[in-house]
Amino acid sequence: MSTAEPTSRRRGRRPAGQDTRTALIEAARAVFAENGYDGATVRAIATRAGVDAAMVNHWFGGKEGLFARAVLELPFDPLELLKILRNGPDEELGERIVRTFITRWDGAGGGVFVALIRSVSGNEQAGQVLREFFQKFFTALISSIGSDDISLRMTLCASQMVGMGMIRYVAKFEPLASEDVEVVVRAVAPTLQRYLTGEIG
Amino acid sequence: MSTAEPTSRRRGRRPAGQDTRTALIEAARAVFAENGYDGATVRAIATRAGVDAAMVNHWFGGKEGLFARAVLELPFDPLELLKILRNGPDEELGERIVRTFITRWDGAGGGVFVALIRSVSGNEQAGQVLREFFQKFFTALISSIGSDDISLRMTLCASQMVGMGMIRYVAKFEPLASEDVEVVVRAVAPTLQRYLTGEIG
Repeated sequence: MSTAEPTSRRRGRRPAGQDTRTALIEAARAVFAENGYDGATVRAIATRAGVDAAMVNHWFGGKEGLFARAVLELPFDPLELLKILRNGPDEELGERIVRTFITRWDGAGGGVFVALIRSVSGNEQAGQVLREFFQKFFTALISSIGSDDISLRMTLCASQMVGMGMIRYVAKFEPLASEDVEVVVRAVAPTLQRYLTGEIG
Repeated sequence: MSTAEPTSRRRGRRPAGQDTRTALIEAARAVFAENGYDGATVRAIATRAGVDAAMVNHWFGGKEGLFARAVLELPFDPLELLKILRNGPDEELGERIVRTFITRWDGAGGGVFVALIRSVSGNEQAGQVLREFFQKFFTALISSIGSDDISLRMTLCASQMVGMGMIRYVAKFEPLASEDVEVVVRAVAPTLQRYLTGEIG
Protein backbone atom coordinates (compact mmCIF):
# COMPACT_ATOMS: atom_id res chain seq x y z
CA MET A 1 0.00 0.00 0.00
CA SER A 2 1.71 3.19 -1.17
CA THR A 3 -0.20 5.34 1.32
CA ALA A 4 1.54 3.46 4.16
CA GLU A 5 4.98 4.59 3.00
CA PRO A 6 7.03 6.77 5.32
CA THR A 7 5.95 10.41 5.22
CA SER A 8 9.33 11.72 4.21
CA ARG A 9 9.37 9.62 1.04
CA ARG A 10 5.76 10.35 0.13
CA ARG A 11 6.47 14.05 0.21
CA GLY A 12 9.33 13.59 -2.23
CA ARG A 13 12.02 14.91 0.10
CA ARG A 14 15.50 13.42 0.45
CA PRO A 15 15.39 9.77 1.61
CA ALA A 16 16.23 10.74 5.16
CA GLY A 17 13.96 8.18 6.85
CA GLN A 18 16.63 5.57 7.40
CA ASP A 19 19.03 8.22 8.71
CA THR A 20 16.40 9.45 11.14
CA ARG A 21 15.73 5.92 12.36
CA THR A 22 19.43 5.19 12.82
CA ALA A 23 20.01 8.48 14.64
CA LEU A 24 17.06 7.77 16.95
CA ILE A 25 18.26 4.23 17.72
CA GLU A 26 21.75 5.46 18.59
CA ALA A 27 20.41 8.33 20.70
CA ALA A 28 17.98 5.97 22.44
CA ARG A 29 20.74 3.52 23.41
CA ALA A 30 22.69 6.36 25.02
CA VAL A 31 19.73 7.97 26.80
CA PHE A 32 18.24 4.67 28.08
CA ALA A 33 21.69 3.63 29.34
CA GLU A 34 22.18 6.96 31.13
CA ASN A 35 18.69 7.44 32.55
CA GLY A 36 17.02 4.03 32.64
CA TYR A 37 13.68 3.24 31.06
CA ASP A 38 11.49 5.50 33.21
CA GLY A 39 13.98 8.38 33.21
CA ALA A 40 14.44 8.48 29.46
CA THR A 41 12.05 10.87 27.72
CA VAL A 42 11.06 10.86 24.06
CA ARG A 43 11.99 14.54 23.96
CA ALA A 44 15.53 13.92 25.28
CA ILE A 45 16.12 11.12 22.77
CA ALA A 46 14.81 13.18 19.85
CA THR A 47 16.89 16.20 20.90
CA ARG A 48 20.03 14.10 21.06
CA ALA A 49 19.25 12.64 17.63
CA GLY A 50 18.62 16.11 16.24
CA VAL A 51 15.12 15.26 15.00
CA ASP A 52 11.57 16.21 15.92
CA ALA A 53 10.02 14.24 18.79
CA ALA A 54 7.12 13.26 16.50
CA MET A 55 9.57 11.06 14.58
CA VAL A 56 9.67 8.65 17.54
CA ASN A 57 5.96 7.93 17.18
CA HIS A 58 6.23 7.90 13.42
CA TRP A 59 9.02 5.34 13.23
CA PHE A 60 8.65 3.31 16.41
CA GLY A 61 5.10 3.84 17.64
CA GLY A 62 6.40 5.47 20.83
CA LYS A 63 8.94 5.00 23.59
CA GLU A 64 8.24 1.27 24.10
CA GLY A 65 8.78 0.49 20.43
CA LEU A 66 11.99 2.49 20.34
CA PHE A 67 13.25 0.74 23.46
CA ALA A 68 12.38 -2.66 22.05
CA ARG A 69 14.19 -1.94 18.80
CA ALA A 70 17.18 -0.03 20.18
CA VAL A 71 17.95 -1.79 23.44
CA LEU A 72 16.28 -5.21 23.31
CA GLU A 73 16.94 -5.40 19.54
CA LEU A 74 13.53 -6.97 19.09
CA PRO A 75 12.35 -7.03 15.49
CA PHE A 76 8.78 -6.17 16.45
CA ASP A 77 6.69 -3.59 18.23
CA PRO A 78 5.74 -4.55 21.80
CA LEU A 79 2.38 -2.79 21.55
CA GLU A 80 1.49 -4.92 18.52
CA LEU A 81 2.64 -7.96 20.51
CA LEU A 82 0.37 -6.96 23.40
CA LYS A 83 -2.61 -6.92 21.05
CA ILE A 84 -1.83 -10.44 19.84
CA LEU A 85 -1.42 -11.78 23.37
CA ARG A 86 -4.66 -10.20 24.57
CA ASN A 87 -6.65 -11.57 21.65
CA GLY A 88 -8.23 -14.67 23.21
CA PRO A 89 -9.64 -16.15 26.41
CA ASP A 90 -7.71 -15.73 29.66
CA GLU A 91 -7.54 -19.50 30.17
CA GLU A 92 -5.44 -19.80 27.00
CA LEU A 93 -3.12 -16.87 27.72
CA GLY A 94 -0.30 -19.20 28.81
CA GLU A 95 -0.52 -21.01 25.48
CA ARG A 96 -0.53 -17.73 23.51
CA ILE A 97 2.52 -16.44 25.41
CA VAL A 98 4.57 -19.60 24.82
CA ARG A 99 3.61 -19.97 21.14
CA THR A 100 4.08 -16.27 20.32
CA PHE A 101 7.46 -15.83 22.00
CA ILE A 102 8.97 -19.12 20.79
CA THR A 103 7.75 -18.48 17.24
CA ARG A 104 9.22 -14.95 17.22
CA TRP A 105 12.51 -16.00 18.80
CA ASP A 106 12.81 -18.97 16.43
CA GLY A 107 12.10 -16.64 13.51
CA ALA A 108 15.01 -14.44 14.55
CA GLY A 109 17.27 -17.49 14.78
CA GLY A 110 17.56 -17.08 18.54
CA GLY A 111 20.17 -14.36 18.01
CA VAL A 112 18.16 -11.60 19.64
CA PHE A 113 17.74 -13.72 22.73
CA VAL A 114 21.47 -14.42 22.98
CA ALA A 115 22.25 -10.69 22.57
CA LEU A 116 19.74 -9.84 25.28
CA ILE A 117 21.22 -12.33 27.77
CA ARG A 118 24.76 -11.15 27.09
CA SER A 119 23.69 -7.58 27.63
CA VAL A 120 21.82 -8.30 30.87
CA SER A 121 24.42 -10.64 32.36
CA GLY A 122 27.29 -8.30 31.55
CA ASN A 123 25.75 -5.00 32.53
CA GLU A 124 23.86 -3.99 35.66
CA GLN A 125 22.23 -1.02 33.90
CA ALA A 126 20.82 -3.21 31.12
CA GLY A 127 19.22 -5.41 33.78
CA GLN A 128 17.60 -2.38 35.39
CA VAL A 129 16.21 -1.11 32.09
CA LEU A 130 14.89 -4.56 31.22
CA ARG A 131 13.19 -4.84 34.63
CA GLU A 132 11.33 -1.56 34.13
CA PHE A 133 10.26 -2.51 30.61
CA PHE A 134 9.18 -6.00 31.63
CA GLN A 135 7.18 -4.59 34.55
CA LYS A 136 5.22 -2.26 32.30
CA PHE A 137 4.70 -4.80 29.53
CA PHE A 138 3.43 -7.65 31.68
CA THR A 139 1.40 -5.44 33.98
CA ALA A 140 -0.41 -4.19 30.88
CA LEU A 141 -0.83 -7.78 29.72
CA ILE A 142 -2.13 -9.52 32.80
CA SER A 143 -3.63 -6.84 35.03
CA SER A 144 -6.96 -7.49 33.31
CA ILE A 145 -7.01 -11.09 34.54
CA GLY A 146 -7.58 -10.05 38.12
CA SER A 147 -5.38 -12.66 39.79
CA ASP A 148 -3.88 -11.81 43.15
CA ASP A 149 -0.08 -11.66 43.51
CA ILE A 150 0.25 -10.13 40.05
CA SER A 151 3.93 -9.23 40.53
CA LEU A 152 4.94 -12.70 41.72
CA ARG A 153 2.95 -14.33 38.91
CA MET A 154 4.60 -12.09 36.29
CA THR A 155 8.10 -12.92 37.47
CA LEU A 156 7.31 -16.65 37.61
CA CYS A 157 6.20 -16.46 33.97
CA ALA A 158 9.40 -14.59 33.15
CA SER A 159 11.48 -17.27 34.86
CA GLN A 160 10.01 -20.02 32.67
CA MET A 161 10.21 -18.04 29.41
CA VAL A 162 13.73 -16.72 30.03
CA GLY A 163 14.85 -20.22 30.99
CA MET A 164 13.25 -21.67 27.86
CA GLY A 165 15.19 -19.13 25.80
CA MET A 166 18.42 -19.92 27.66
CA ILE A 167 18.10 -23.68 27.06
CA ARG A 168 16.81 -23.43 23.48
CA TYR A 169 19.08 -20.68 22.12
CA VAL A 170 22.04 -20.10 24.46
CA ALA A 171 22.99 -23.38 26.16
CA LYS A 172 21.26 -25.38 23.38
CA PHE A 173 20.33 -28.46 25.39
CA GLU A 174 18.80 -31.17 23.19
CA PRO A 175 16.11 -32.16 22.49
CA LEU A 176 14.58 -28.85 23.64
CA ALA A 177 16.83 -26.79 21.35
CA SER A 178 15.43 -28.44 18.20
CA GLU A 179 11.97 -29.49 19.36
CA ASP A 180 8.96 -28.39 17.31
CA VAL A 181 7.23 -25.24 18.58
CA GLU A 182 3.99 -27.11 19.26
CA VAL A 183 5.76 -29.73 21.40
CA VAL A 184 7.18 -26.88 23.48
CA VAL A 185 3.74 -25.27 23.69
CA ARG A 186 2.10 -28.47 24.97
CA ALA A 187 4.83 -29.00 27.56
CA VAL A 188 5.23 -25.43 28.82
CA ALA A 189 1.86 -23.67 28.32
CA PRO A 190 0.30 -25.36 31.41
CA THR A 191 3.17 -23.98 33.50
CA LEU A 192 2.53 -20.42 32.32
CA GLN A 193 -1.23 -20.84 32.75
CA ARG A 194 -0.83 -22.03 36.34
CA TYR A 195 1.52 -19.14 37.12
CA LEU A 196 -1.04 -16.72 35.63
CA THR A 197 -4.34 -17.99 37.03
CA GLY A 198 -3.70 -21.11 39.13
CA GLU A 199 -2.81 -21.97 42.73
CA ILE A 200 0.79 -20.89 43.41
CA GLY A 201 1.00 -20.59 47.20
CA MET B 1 37.41 -34.36 63.37
CA SER B 2 41.18 -34.41 63.06
CA THR B 3 41.18 -37.75 61.19
CA ALA B 4 39.33 -36.05 58.35
CA GLU B 5 42.18 -33.61 57.74
CA PRO B 6 43.92 -33.69 54.38
CA THR B 7 46.51 -36.45 54.15
CA SER B 8 49.38 -34.13 53.38
CA ARG B 9 48.88 -32.21 56.61
CA ARG B 10 48.28 -35.28 58.74
CA ARG B 11 51.60 -36.68 57.64
CA GLY B 12 53.36 -33.51 58.69
CA ARG B 13 54.74 -32.69 55.25
CA ARG B 14 54.90 -29.20 53.76
CA PRO B 15 51.41 -27.64 53.48
CA ALA B 16 51.23 -28.46 49.76
CA GLY B 17 47.56 -29.36 49.73
CA GLN B 18 46.34 -25.94 48.72
CA ASP B 19 49.01 -25.74 45.99
CA THR B 20 47.93 -29.13 44.64
CA ARG B 21 44.27 -28.09 44.60
CA THR B 22 45.08 -24.81 42.85
CA ALA B 23 47.27 -26.53 40.27
CA LEU B 24 44.54 -29.09 39.58
CA ILE B 25 41.86 -26.41 39.18
CA GLU B 26 43.99 -24.45 36.72
CA ALA B 27 44.92 -27.58 34.76
CA ALA B 28 41.30 -28.72 34.73
CA ARG B 29 40.09 -25.42 33.27
CA ALA B 30 42.58 -25.74 30.43
CA VAL B 31 41.93 -29.42 29.72
CA PHE B 32 38.11 -29.16 29.91
CA ALA B 33 38.23 -26.13 27.60
CA GLU B 34 40.46 -27.95 25.12
CA ASN B 35 38.80 -31.37 25.14
CA GLY B 36 35.28 -30.92 26.47
CA TYR B 37 33.85 -32.80 29.42
CA ASP B 38 33.92 -36.30 27.93
CA GLY B 39 37.30 -35.86 26.27
CA ALA B 40 39.07 -34.62 29.40
CA THR B 41 40.71 -37.41 31.41
CA VAL B 42 41.72 -37.31 35.05
CA ARG B 43 45.17 -38.50 33.97
CA ALA B 44 45.61 -35.63 31.48
CA ILE B 45 44.58 -33.07 34.07
CA ALA B 46 46.86 -34.51 36.75
CA THR B 47 49.77 -34.69 34.32
CA ARG B 48 49.35 -31.07 33.34
CA ALA B 49 49.15 -30.09 37.01
CA GLY B 50 52.28 -32.13 37.75
CA VAL B 51 50.61 -34.18 40.49
CA ASP B 52 49.53 -37.79 40.92
CA ALA B 53 46.12 -38.68 39.44
CA ALA B 54 45.02 -39.96 42.86
CA MET B 55 45.01 -36.34 44.05
CA VAL B 56 41.91 -35.68 41.90
CA ASN B 57 39.91 -38.22 43.88
CA HIS B 58 41.49 -37.06 47.11
CA TRP B 59 40.63 -33.39 46.70
CA PHE B 60 37.57 -33.40 44.46
CA GLY B 61 36.04 -36.89 44.69
CA GLY B 62 36.64 -37.45 40.97
CA LYS B 63 36.24 -35.80 37.59
CA GLU B 64 32.69 -34.52 38.23
CA GLY B 65 33.74 -32.79 41.42
CA LEU B 66 36.77 -31.22 39.79
CA PHE B 67 34.63 -30.02 36.89
CA ALA B 68 32.04 -28.57 39.25
CA ARG B 69 34.68 -26.71 41.22
CA ALA B 70 36.97 -25.62 38.37
CA VAL B 71 34.53 -24.84 35.56
CA LEU B 72 31.11 -24.35 37.12
CA GLU B 73 32.72 -22.84 40.24
CA LEU B 74 30.19 -24.65 42.37
CA PRO B 75 31.08 -24.76 46.05
CA PHE B 76 29.88 -28.35 46.44
CA ASP B 77 30.38 -31.85 45.12
CA PRO B 78 27.76 -32.94 42.55
CA LEU B 79 27.88 -36.56 43.73
CA GLU B 80 26.97 -35.45 47.24
CA LEU B 81 24.19 -33.36 45.70
CA LEU B 82 22.90 -36.40 43.81
CA LYS B 83 22.60 -38.30 47.09
CA ILE B 84 20.54 -35.51 48.63
CA LEU B 85 18.23 -35.28 45.62
CA ARG B 86 17.68 -39.04 45.49
CA ASN B 87 16.87 -39.27 49.18
CA GLY B 88 13.06 -39.28 49.14
CA PRO B 89 9.99 -40.35 47.18
CA ASP B 90 9.86 -39.74 43.41
CA GLU B 91 6.67 -37.72 43.75
CA GLU B 92 8.57 -35.12 45.81
CA LEU B 93 11.64 -34.95 43.58
CA GLY B 94 10.51 -31.65 42.02
CA GLU B 95 10.27 -30.11 45.47
CA ARG B 96 13.72 -31.43 46.49
CA ILE B 97 15.30 -30.06 43.30
CA VAL B 98 13.84 -26.57 43.71
CA ARG B 99 14.60 -26.33 47.44
CA THR B 100 18.12 -27.73 47.14
CA PHE B 101 19.25 -25.59 44.20
CA ILE B 102 17.70 -22.33 45.42
CA THR B 103 19.11 -22.86 48.92
CA ARG B 104 22.61 -23.55 47.55
CA TRP B 105 22.54 -20.66 45.07
CA ASP B 106 21.19 -18.29 47.73
CA GLY B 107 23.92 -19.46 50.09
CA ALA B 108 26.54 -18.50 47.51
CA GLY B 109 24.92 -15.08 47.10
CA GLY B 110 23.89 -15.92 43.54
CA GLY B 111 27.43 -15.13 42.37
CA VAL B 112 28.18 -18.63 41.10
CA PHE B 113 25.04 -18.54 39.00
CA VAL B 114 25.95 -15.18 37.45
CA ALA B 115 29.47 -16.45 36.64
CA LEU B 116 28.01 -19.58 35.05
CA ILE B 117 25.63 -17.62 32.81
CA ARG B 118 28.37 -15.22 31.72
CA SER B 119 30.59 -18.14 30.87
CA VAL B 120 27.93 -20.01 28.90
CA SER B 121 26.53 -16.98 27.05
CA GLY B 122 29.99 -15.71 26.09
CA ASN B 123 31.64 -18.97 25.10
CA GLU B 124 30.39 -21.77 22.85
CA GLN B 125 32.83 -24.26 24.41
CA ALA B 126 31.54 -23.60 27.92
CA GLY B 127 28.02 -24.32 26.68
CA GLN B 128 29.16 -27.64 25.23
CA VAL B 129 30.91 -28.67 28.44
CA LEU B 130 27.89 -27.70 30.51
CA ARG B 131 25.59 -29.71 28.22
CA GLU B 132 27.67 -32.87 28.67
CA PHE B 133 27.86 -32.41 32.43
CA PHE B 134 24.15 -31.67 32.75
CA GLN B 135 23.28 -34.73 30.64
CA LYS B 136 25.26 -37.05 32.91
CA PHE B 137 24.08 -35.47 36.13
CA PHE B 138 20.36 -35.48 35.38
CA THR B 139 20.38 -38.84 33.65
CA ALA B 140 21.86 -40.26 36.84
CA LEU B 141 19.22 -38.41 38.85
CA ILE B 142 16.01 -39.24 37.02
CA SER B 143 16.67 -42.41 35.05
CA SER B 144 15.40 -44.38 38.02
CA ILE B 145 11.97 -42.77 37.75
CA GLY B 146 11.14 -44.61 34.57
CA SER B 147 9.29 -41.79 32.80
CA ASP B 148 9.26 -41.80 29.00
CA ASP B 149 10.87 -38.87 27.13
CA ILE B 150 13.63 -38.62 29.74
CA SER B 151 15.74 -36.22 27.66
CA LEU B 152 12.89 -33.82 26.98
CA ARG B 153 11.83 -33.94 30.63
CA MET B 154 15.38 -33.20 31.80
CA THR B 155 15.72 -30.17 29.54
CA LEU B 156 12.31 -28.85 30.58
CA CYS B 157 13.44 -29.02 34.22
CA ALA B 158 16.64 -27.24 33.25
CA SER B 159 14.67 -24.48 31.51
CA GLN B 160 12.68 -23.71 34.67
CA MET B 161 15.67 -23.86 37.02
CA VAL B 162 18.00 -21.85 34.78
CA GLY B 163 15.23 -19.29 34.27
CA MET B 164 14.64 -19.09 38.01
CA GLY B 165 18.35 -18.41 38.48
CA MET B 166 18.31 -15.77 35.75
CA ILE B 167 15.36 -13.90 37.26
CA ARG B 168 16.45 -14.26 40.89
CA TYR B 169 20.20 -13.59 40.58
CA VAL B 170 20.98 -12.01 37.19
CA ALA B 171 18.03 -9.88 36.04
CA LYS B 172 16.79 -9.57 39.66
CA PHE B 173 13.09 -9.12 38.95
CA GLU B 174 11.12 -8.43 42.13
CA PRO B 175 9.44 -9.94 44.04
CA LEU B 176 11.03 -13.20 42.88
CA ALA B 177 14.57 -11.95 43.54
CA SER B 178 13.89 -11.49 47.27
CA GLU B 179 11.10 -14.02 47.86
CA ASP B 180 11.54 -16.57 50.65
CA VAL B 181 12.87 -19.95 49.49
CA GLU B 182 9.70 -21.74 50.60
CA VAL B 183 7.47 -19.39 48.59
CA VAL B 184 9.56 -20.24 45.53
CA VAL B 185 9.33 -23.95 46.34
CA ARG B 186 5.51 -23.85 46.58
CA ALA B 187 5.22 -21.95 43.31
CA VAL B 188 7.79 -23.82 41.23
CA ALA B 189 7.98 -27.39 42.61
CA PRO B 190 4.71 -28.46 40.87
CA THR B 191 6.22 -27.33 37.55
CA LEU B 192 9.31 -29.50 38.04
CA GLN B 193 7.22 -32.43 39.25
CA ARG B 194 4.99 -32.28 36.18
CA TYR B 195 8.02 -32.10 33.90
CA LEU B 196 9.49 -35.14 35.69
CA THR B 197 6.51 -37.46 36.05
CA GLY B 198 3.39 -35.75 34.63
CA GLU B 199 1.66 -35.39 31.29
CA ILE B 200 3.76 -33.19 29.00
CA GLY B 201 2.58 -34.05 25.46
